[in-house]
Amino acid sequence: MSKAGASVLAVEPWRLRETELDLGMLARTESLFALSNGHVGVRGNLDEGEPHVLPGSYLNSVFESRPLPHAEAGYGYPEAGQTVINVTNGKVLRLLVDDEPFDVRYGTLRSHERVLDFRAGTLRRELEWESPAGRVVKVRSTRLVSFTQRAVLAVAFEVEAVDAPVRVVVQSELVADEELPDLGRGDPRAASALGNALQSLDGAGRGSGGYLVHRTRRSGITVAAAMDNVVTAPGRTQVRNEHGDDWVRVGITTELDRGQVLRVEKVVAYGWSSQRSMPAVRDQVSAALTAACSSGWDRLLADQRAFLDDFWAGADVEVEGDPELQQAVRFALFHVLQASVRAERRPVPAKGLTGPGYDGHAFWDTETFVLPLLTHTLPDAAASALTWRRDTLPKALARARTLGLDGACFPWRTIDGDECSGYWPAGTAAFHINADIADAAMRYVNATADERFEREVAFDLLVQTARMWCSLGHHGRDGAFRIDGVTGPDEYTAVVDNNVFTNLMAQRNLVAAAAVAERHHERWEELAVTAEELEHWRGAAAAMYVPYDAALQVHPQSEGFTSHKVWDFEGTERSQYPLLLHFPYFDLYRKQVVKQADLILALHLCGSSFSPEDKRRGFEYYEPLTVRDSSLSACTQAVIAAEVGHLDLAYDYTGEAALMDLHDLAHKTRDGLHMASLAGAWMAVVAGFGGMRDHVGQLSFAPRLPRGLERLAFRMLHRGRRIHVEVLDRVATYTLLAGPPVELFHHGRPFRLAIGEPAQLDVPAPPDLPRPSQPPGRAPTRRGPG
Amino acid sequence: MSKAGASVLAVEPWRLRETELDLGMLARTESLFALSNGHVGVRGNLDEGEPHVLPGSYLNSVFESRPLPHAEAGYGYPEAGQTVINVTNGKVLRLLVDDEPFDVRYGTLRSHERVLDFRAGTLRRELEWESPAGRVVKVRSTRLVSFTQRAVLAVAFEVEAVDAPVRVVVQSELVADEELPDLGRGDPRAASALGNALQSLDGAGRGSGGYLVHRTRRSGITVAAAMDNVVTAPGRTQVRNEHGDDWVRVGITTELDRGQVLRVEKVVAYGWSSQRSMPAVRDQVSAALTAACSSGWDRLLADQRAFLDDFWAGADVEVEGDPELQQAVRFALFHVLQASVRAERRPVPAKGLTGPGYDGHAFWDTETFVLPLLTHTLPDAAASALTWRRDTLPKALARARTLGLDGACFPWRTIDGDECSGYWPAGTAAFHINADIADAAMRYVNATADERFEREVAFDLLVQTARMWCSLGHHGRDGAFRIDGVTGPDEYTAVVDNNVFTNLMAQRNLVAAAAVAERHHERWEELAVTAEELEHWRGAAAAMYVPYDAALQVHPQSEGFTSHKVWDFEGTERSQYPLLLHFPYFDLYRKQVVKQADLILALHLCGSSFSPEDKRRGFEYYEPLTVRDSSLSACTQAVIAAEVGHLDLAYDYTGEAALMDLHDLAHKTRDGLHMASLAGAWMAVVAGFGGMRDHVGQLSFAPRLPRGLERLAFRMLHRGRRIHVEVLDRVATYTLLAGPPVELFHHGRPFRLAIGEPAQLDVPAPPDLPRPSQPPGRAPTRRGPG
Repeated sequence: MSKAGASVLAVEPWRLRETELDLGMLARTESLFALSNGHVGVRGNLDEGEPHVLPGSYLNSVFESRPLPHAEAGYGYPEAGQTVINVTNGKVLRLLVDDEPFDVRYGTLRSHERVLDFRAGTLRRELEWESPAGRVVKVRSTRLVSFTQRAVLAVAFEVEAVDAPVRVVVQSELVADEELPDLGRGDPRAASALGNALQSLDGAGRGSGGYLVHRTRRSGITVAAAMDNVVTAPGRTQVRNEHGDDWVRVGITTELDRGQVLRVEKVVAYGWSSQRSMPAVRDQVSAALTAACSSGWDRLLADQRAFLDDFWAGADVEVEGDPELQQAVRFALFHVLQASVRAERRPVPAKGLTGPGYDGHAFWDTETFVLPLLTHTLPDAAASALTWRRDTLPKALARARTLGLDGACFPWRTIDGDECSGYWPAGTAAFHINADIADAAMRYVNATADERFEREVAFDLLVQTARMWCSLGHHGRDGAFRIDGVTGPDEYTAVVDNNVFTNLMAQRNLVAAAAVAERHHERWEELAVTAEELEHWRGAAAAMYVPYDAALQVHPQSEGFTSHKVWDFEGTERSQYPLLLHFPYFDLYRKQVVKQADLILALHLCGSSFSPEDKRRGFEYYEPLTVRDSSLSACTQAVIAAEVGHLDLAYDYTGEAALMDLHDLAHKTRDGLHMASLAGAWMAVVAGFGGMRDHVGQLSFAPRLPRGLERLAFRMLHRGRRIHVEVLDRVATYTLLAGPPVELFHHGRPFRLAIGEPAQLDVPAPPDLPRPSQPPGRAPTRRGPG
Repeated sequence: MSKAGASVLAVEPWRLRETELDLGMLARTESLFALSNGHVGVRGNLDEGEPHVLPGSYLNSVFESRPLPHAEAGYGYPEAGQTVINVTNGKVLRLLVDDEPFDVRYGTLRSHERVLDFRAGTLRRELEWESPAGRVVKVRSTRLVSFTQRAVLAVAFEVEAVDAPVRVVVQSELVADEELPDLGRGDPRAASALGNALQSLDGAGRGSGGYLVHRTRRSGITVAAAMDNVVTAPGRTQVRNEHGDDWVRVGITTELDRGQVLRVEKVVAYGWSSQRSMPAVRDQVSAALTAACSSGWDRLLADQRAFLDDFWAGADVEVEGDPELQQAVRFALFHVLQASVRAERRPVPAKGLTGPGYDGHAFWDTETFVLPLLTHTLPDAAASALTWRRDTLPKALARARTLGLDGACFPWRTIDGDECSGYWPAGTAAFHINADIADAAMRYVNATADERFEREVAFDLLVQTARMWCSLGHHGRDGAFRIDGVTGPDEYTAVVDNNVFTNLMAQRNLVAAAAVAERHHERWEELAVTAEELEHWRGAAAAMYVPYDAALQVHPQSEGFTSHKVWDFEGTERSQYPLLLHFPYFDLYRKQVVKQADLILALHLCGSSFSPEDKRRGFEYYEPLTVRDSSLSACTQAVIAAEVGHLDLAYDYTGEAALMDLHDLAHKTRDGLHMASLAGAWMAVVAGFGGMRDHVGQLSFAPRLPRGLERLAFRMLHRGRRIHVEVLDRVATYTLLAGPPVELFHHGRPFRLAIGEPAQLDVPAPPDLPRPSQPPGRAPTRRGPG
C-alpha cells in the first residue's frame, strides 16, 4: 500500500470508513473489511464479486490436505500439510442495470463509501454509479456475519433508480470453486490440490433460495451452504432460479422508476463436518437458514448491536490525544472479537478468517498474544480456544511419542491438531509453544477462577506439557535443569541450548502443573499422576538453568548468544529487510540479530524472574539487535519499554503494533489481518501504558503515559468483576463497575477496590533515560511530540 | 546379505571369486564386481542383461537435473538437484541356444564362477548351462574397462557347444533408457525426471557395429556410445544389424559342433560433453573406437596388466595372519584405483562409478578419505581430483557470494560443482569441506613437492578458502577467533559453535594459505592478495579458539557438547540403528551421541594440536558415545585406537572398515561401493598399524601390530621415492626401493634411508590399557585372538 492509499481511510473513533474506492488498495481493504464470527468469515469483497484480488469465504477448520515435499526426508517430518480453502461464496449479489453488469471498472463511479462499524458489527456500502449507457443508480448494502447465529451471513442490498426508469436484475448467488490467483506458490502439486478442492455432492435451487453441498477431495470435509432471499420491490418482480453443480443463482428482475428501490435481504447459512453424513450436514444448514429467516434481517441487525454493546461495556479502550491510535485499538479489539467469539472449540488462526495467509494455521500467536486480550475481555472465547487445544491432546500425545518424548507436544502450526510445519528448526524445535499453551490456561484460570475449566481442561494440558518438559530437559553434572537444542521465539536463532524464555516458561509450566495437580487429586488415577512425578516437576523447576553473561551483565537469549558476532547492520541495505528473504538461515542463526522479542518477551511474561535492573539492561542490550522482521515484536517491545521507563519509545512501538494492518507495515495485509499484532495493540496499551500484569495470580497495574497521550481509559473483566482504569498524566483512577470488592496493585502497592469507592492514586514520574538505538533504518516511526 | 551369502565369495589374496551364483546376492555382486577407470564405469551385471537388480553404466559427470522440493522455502536453498543416470548399456551380450534365451533362471546352471582379478584388471566369468531343452553350453567372458584407453569397455565372449551341435545366436547390443527400478524414492517428479532421461539424437548400425547419440533432457549433456564386434567362428556365421532410436543390435548366428567355440570380441567406446555439438561427440567416440579396435583385445588386456603391475609395485599392502583382511585391503586398493585413475579433472563420487547411491555425488569423503591413499599411491589421480575442485572455483565463489561470505564455499554434495544439498544443517553448514579440500591439496604438495600444482592449483584453493574462513569466523570479545553455527563431521550434531575439528582444520587452512601465498608472490596481483590479508589469516589462525572441558579434561567436539544429556543407549533397541531412521534430528542433535568420528578425526588429522594424554582421554571419552551409523568412522577410530595403544580394538575397527562392502555391513552395498571406507581400510592399516602420518610436512611412522597379525608390509610413494615398510611383532624394516635418500621418523625419532641401506628399528611394546566400551550392540566384531 502507498501512504497516499491510506488517506482514503478516514480516522474516526468507532468505525473504519473508506471515502472512495482505490482499486490499488483492494487487496488490503478485502482484509480490513472482512467480517467474521470465528465460525464463518468472509473477506471484504465487493458485493458484485469483481473486481477482486482474493475472493474469500472461510469456515473455521475447513481445509484441504496437500503433500509436504522434502528435498531430503527425515524421521518425523510431517508429510502432509493443511491449507484453508475458499469455500462456497454466499455474499455475491450481482447487479445488471438495463443489461449492463454493474462493475466499478466501467461507467462512472460517482461516489463510493464503505464503513466497517465497530458498534453495529456491519460493513455498510453506499455508492452512486452511472452505467456506460448513462443510467444512474444508487446501491446500498449492509453485510453482517452474525455473532448470535453463528452459521449465518446476511446482506441487505438495495438498488435505487436515480434519474430515470431502469430495468434492474439482481442475481443472488452461491458459487463454489471460484477461480483463484495462484495459491500454490509455484508448487504445481500444491496448486492442483487446492485449486479445485471442492467436489460437488448435492445441490438444488427453488424459488428464492437454494443450497449446495460439496466435499473436499483429500481431507474429506463436507461443506454445505444454503440461501434464501426476501425481495421488496415497488412493482412487479420476476424471480428465476437456476443452478448447476457448483452454483445456484436467484435472478430477481424488476423495473424501477426514478426514486424507487429494489431491496433484497439475503440470508446464507453454512455448515460443515468431517464426521457427519451429507444429508445430516445439508439438513443442519437448512435448519440454520430457517432459524435466521424467521428472525429476519432487522432482528439479526439488532442482536448484532446488542451483542457488541455488551462487549464494549467490558472491553473498551479510550485513548485521548491520538485519534489514529484510538481508532486502531478499537479496530483491533473488533477484529480479535470477530476471529474468536464463536470459534467454539476450533482454533483461532493467525489471520483469523480474514485471508489465506499462513495457510490458515494457528500458531503460538493465539495463546501468547490473542488469549491475554480475550481472557480479560471475552473469557469464554479464551476458554473455548484452550478447550480446542485440549481436544487435540490425542494428536499431541502421539506426536510426543513420535519424537521420543513423554506427555504432549503440540504442533507449531496446524488447523486440526496435526503438525504441519515443514522446517523443523523453526517448527518442531520451538517447544515453547507447549509452555505458552499451559501459561494461557493458567492465565485464564487466574483471571476467572473457573474451577471446572481448571479441572477438566487445564489439568490435562498442564500435566501432559509438564511431562514433556521433564523428558525434554535433563539435570546436568551440576544438577541444573537444562533444555538443550530448542528454538525460542526469535526465529533468527534456532536450535540452541537453554533459551531463557523457553526455560522460564517451562519452569512456570512445571510449577503450575504441580499446583493444579495438587488441587485435583480426583483426576490422578485417570492420568496416572503420582506424587513422585510432582516431585520431579518441582525439582526440575527449582533447578531450572538460566544463563547469564556476567561480563556484560545481561541474559543471553540463549546460551552463548552474546559471544556471537553482531550482525553487520551498517552493511545491510534497507531493501534487505526482512533479512530472511536476503540472507541464509545459517548466517542469521549464528549472529547476534533478533527477528522478534525473545528475551524481551521473557521480561514481560516471566517478569517476576528478573530484577528491574536486569530488565532495563536487557531491554537496552537487545534494542540495537532487534530488527522486528516479525509482526509479533513491536507490542512486546512497547510493554517492556514502558516498564523500564522508555515511554516515548513505548509509544512508537504501540503505534507500530496498532497500525500493522491499517498501514500495512508488514506488506502482508492482503493475505489477512495479523491477529497477534492486533491483540498486541491492546497489550501495548493495557500492559504497556496501563502496566497491567496478571502473571503472579494477582492483577496489578503500573500506569504511566507517554508524552502526547492525554488520557487513557480501559475496561477489563477479572474474576467476575468489571474494572475501569483511567490514567491521566499524574493520576490514575480505578473504578469497580460490577462485582465484589477486590485487591489490586498500583505500582507495586496493594489497594482495595469496591463499587462506589473508586481509588485515585498518584502516577510516579518516569526515570530520565537516554533513548536506546535500533539497527539503522529499523527504528519505529516517531509518534509522540519531539 | 546373509552371512551364508558371503560364503559364495572365496577368500583369496589377489582376487574376489564367486564360486556359485546366488541370486540373493545379485545386488551386492553387481557392485562388488563393478569395473571402472573413473571415466567409464559398469556394474557387474550379467552379460546377458538379466536377471539384474540394478543395471548400471555410468559416465563420470553425466547426470540429469531434477527439482529439489522444499516444504518451506528458504533463501539460498538449491532448487535443482543432480542425479547420476544409467547411460547406454554397452556390455549386453545376449545368447540364444537353439532359440532358447540363455537365462540362469531357466534350465540348469551346472556351474558358475566369476573372478574379479586385481592384477589383471578384469572380470572373468565361466559357466556351464543346460537349456530347458537339454542343450549344454559353456560360456566364458572376460570384461574390462581399460585403464590405458579411458573411453573403452571391452568384452571377450565365448560360447562352446559341450555335448551336441547347437545353433547359437549372440546379440551384441547398445541399449539406452533401460527400464529401472524406482529411483525417485517415491517422489513422482524425481522419478519422471530420471526414468527416461536420455533423448535420442542420432544412431545407426552397420555390419558388426553401430552407435547411439542421446542428450539428457534437462541438463543437456550429449552422450554417445559406439561399438564394434570381432567374430571368430569355426563355420559360417551370419551377422544381422538392426537398430532403433534407443538400441543397436548385432545378431551373430552360427552352428557349433560339439567342442566348437564362437568368440565375439566386443569393443565399446563412450564419449560425452555438455559443451560440444552432437557431431563432435559422435566423431570423438568413433575415433576412440577405431583406436581401441586397432589395438585389439589382446593388447588391451596386456596393457591392463602392465598398468596394474606398476600400480601394485608402488602401492601393495601385505597382511600376514589374516587372509580375509589381506584380500579386503587389495580389493579396496583396486576399487579406489578404479574410481579415480582416469577421472581426469572430474570428481571421484562417494560410490565411484559402481552404483547410483548418494545420487552419484562427490562429498568431503574424497578429500579426507580417498585422497590420502591416492596421494601416496597414485599421486596424479590425487592432483586430478583437486584440479577438478579448482576448476569448479567459479561456482564456489558464487556460492560464497550467495551466502554472504568472502572467497569460496565448495558444495557439500555435487556432481558439477553446484550445491545439491537439500538440508542445509547437514549440507551448507558443514563448512569443514573447504578446509578438507585445502588440507588435501597441502598433503599432496607435501608428498610430491609438485611445485607447479602448488602454484596453479593449491594457491587458488588455499587463498579462496582462507578468505572464506576469515569471513565466516570472528574475533570475540577476548580476541579468540570463533567459528559459530557450523556443522562438523558428526552428522548427529549440527549447527554448533566452535567445532574442534572445523576450527583446527580452518587453522591449518589459514596457516597453509599464508605459507603458500608467501612462496608465490607472482600470483598475488591476479587474486588481489595483500600482505595485510596474510596477516589476518595468520592472526585468525594464531587466535583460533579450541574449547576444552577442564572438569572432564577432554575436548568437547563442539562448544557445550559435554554438557548435553548422554543418549539413552541402554534404552535403544538394536533394531533402531541407524538412529537417524528412528529418531528425529532434533533429538539426536541435542544429545551426546556421535554418528561418526569427529573429535577423533581431529586427533588424527590435526594430531600435532593434541598431547598424547589428550588423545587417549579423548578417544576413551568418545568411544562409548560413538555409534558408527556412518561408514566414515571405523577407519578413523582404528587409526586413533592404534595410536593411543588400544591395538586389539584398532584391529577390530580395521576389519570393519575393510569388510564394509565385502560383508555389506552398512546394508547399502547394492547402491554402490563405499569409496571412503575402502580407502579407509588402507588408512587403518597404514596410518593405524603403520602409524604413518604426513601432516607436518614430514613422513613419519609409528608401527605396532595387534595380536593376530604376524606381518604387515606396505609400499608407498613419497616425493619421487618408493618406500617399503615391513613390520613384524617387535621390529620394523624400512627400505628405499627407488629415489634419493630421505629422512623419515620412526616412533618420533628421525632416521635416514637410502637405497641399499634398509633401516631395522625396534617396535616399542604398547601400553596395557583397559579396552574402552562402545554403546550396547555397537562394538565392532572381534577380530584378533581372545
